[in-house]
Amino acid sequence: MFFFVHVLVELYVDTPEVGNDSDFRVHVFSSSSELLEKLHKKWNLEEKQRFTAMHIYGLDVHLDRFLRSATKAKISSPFSQSALRSILIQLTAASKCKRGTMRYWLSAGPGDFLLSPSGCPTSAFYAVVNDEQVSPHKDGIKVITSHTAIKPPQFATVKSVNYLPNVLAKMEAEEKGAFASIWVDEEGYIAEGPNMNVAFITKEKELVMPNFDKILRGCTAIRLLELAHNLVDQGLLTGVATKNITVEEAKSAAEMMFVGSTLPVLPIIMWDDQPIGDGRVGELTKQLSDMLWDDMVAGPGRIPVSYV
Amino acid sequence: MFFFVHVLVELYVDTPEVGNDSDFRVHVFSSSSELLEKLHKKWNLEEKQRFTAMHIYGLDVHLDRFLRSATKAKISSPFSQSALRSILIQLTAASKCKRGTMRYWLSAGPGDFLLSPSGCPTSAFYAVVNDEQVSPHKDGIKVITSHTAIKPPQFATVKSVNYLPNVLAKMEAEEKGAFASIWVDEEGYIAEGPNMNVAFITKEKELVMPNFDKILRGCTAIRLLELAHNLVDQGLLTGVATKNITVEEAKSAAEMMFVGSTLPVLPIIMWDDQPIGDGRVGELTKQLSDMLWDDMVAGPGRIPVSYV
Ligand SMILES: Cc1ncc(COP(=O)(O)O)c(C=O)c1O
Ligand SMILES: Cc1ncc(COP(=O)(O)O)c(C=O)c1O
Repeated sequence: MFFFVHVLVELYVDTPEVGNDSDFRVHVFSSSSELLEKLHKKWNLEEKQRFTAMHIYGLDVHLDRFLRSATKAKISSPFSQSALRSILIQLTAASKCKRGTMRYWLSAGPGDFLLSPSGCPTSAFYAVVNDEQVSPHKDGIKVITSHTAIKPPQFATVKSVNYLPNVLAKMEAEEKGAFASIWVDEEGYIAEGPNMNVAFITKEKELVMPNFDKILRGCTAIRLLELAHNLVDQGLLTGVATKNITVEEAKSAAEMMFVGSTLPVLPIIMWDDQPIGDGRVGELTKQLSDMLWDDMVAGPGRIPVSYV
Repeated sequence: MFFFVHVLVELYVDTPEVGNDSDFRVHVFSSSSELLEKLHKKWNLEEKQRFTAMHIYGLDVHLDRFLRSATKAKISSPFSQSALRSILIQLTAASKCKRGTMRYWLSAGPGDFLLSPSGCPTSAFYAVVNDEQVSPHKDGIKVITSHTAIKPPQFATVKSVNYLPNVLAKMEAEEKGAFASIWVDEEGYIAEGPNMNVAFITKEKELVMPNFDKILRGCTAIRLLELAHNLVDQGLLTGVATKNITVEEAKSAAEMMFVGSTLPVLPIIMWDDQPIGDGRVGELTKQLSDMLWDDMVAGPGRIPVSYV
């Protein structure tokens, strides 16, 4: 999820008295534990410039997936979706941040050290606003095919913190001088990157992405598929599809890109030391990247945040 | 890992000046964050009775596996194995706990919110002593076959906190009135429980367990396999083996049990609503349970802790 902030702030949102969701006011504590103090050398909480009209991008679609993932992980949210939305908007305003990212978690809650959540009286929601500069990517990067075991579909379709496979898939690539790796599923079809979806432009100028039944349903990917229809209308793309894609088909694509919230599009120009297309950032990739960027900074899927 | 403690204590062990491992002294802070204060209603840190000769069970084998798992997760320990051993013994002494469990973690360390640990300057080690009463299990429990996707071998062989599948496997059973579920692998062979290994006594009085190539190499299971040879010597068991076990073979066993650190043996008498053997706790299961329990409270694999 992407929005505009200015400085790293971490806030602990306490359980409020919930009445009507619309006049729901969150009591916000700015607190930090000893460990977090070690983590962040310097807090910077003095009064900031006030911004009066910044936006949160894609909040509703991310919250939809967040709660779908929670259901699959059998964690029930302590707040309704509209209350979560309100908490995150208020957190953003309280952070006084201008440009950055927001991360949030649902946990089965404090309890014992056992597997079953039956010892956890209530689930807990945490959110962090992070000063992370996000800007469009102009240069293309290298990828490799992953040798890290892919998650079973039941878990690959859930956004969770069980990301050890994803971490190892990323590290594996970094060790080989690549940016990230691409998972191929057991049947030999393209899956996704460690925390990004992957998209291709075929030689026939079709935008293709893998089906979302065995991978994470990326919010950015879904939006890209929507926006791409404009390029079909303009005659620049011949079509938009999600389907099973073999490695061979994928490697012979004209263009290739990663797609994800903090990118939003990252051109890929080399895969397992073979160039994709002519080995340069593709024209259609550039156009899709611009479209998604415009959508992020000026599109309809943004929620205004009042910083005063 | 199992040892004797008396009260829940949580301590943060700071990085010490490491000289010679043998005269390595840990500076121990007893600290807690705001969130932990919420978690634990009441701390109980006043001076306790002093116990002068309690023991930690199985520390070295658990530390071996801990560091093997860390290697597979590509986390390098900030301490040598002997330093970790020393920290945990000192933590136990400082806790003044009489009977309980110890849990410890290795993390890539504080850093950013990204997948790659390249933004984490140093790994971190955490340990907790928990007042958890462990006692031998006399009654048999029910299990079901798991419908939760099993982890790929690369991750099933690693002890990690990526235990969402394990949690769901446990919850699935609880929802059906069973204690836990049993995973069956893709080839149809018996795997393990959510945080326990599983063992069988065949009708021919052989102790059999699945191979450890696709499941966690349980420290308790390994010790059970060693100790069981005594029963072979006494003519009570005809043999001890690890091998691929089909569901059919497993369901026709005479006795069945879970095996794990905090159990150490838990008799299973019903599986998917079918009785195991005659549906009562087996005699050999009882003997194996007694042997493991004796090993825990009086065996050679214990490290003395000086509480003064
Ligand atoms: C495994 C995985 N795939 C794809 C994505 C991209 O999803 P989104 O566009 O919603 O960020 C992510 C995002 O974190 C991810 O973790
Ligand atoms: C998946 C799994 N299998 C088996 C075990 C049993 O291992 P141990 O005997 O070392 O406790 C555990 C222990 O936590 C486990 O998590």
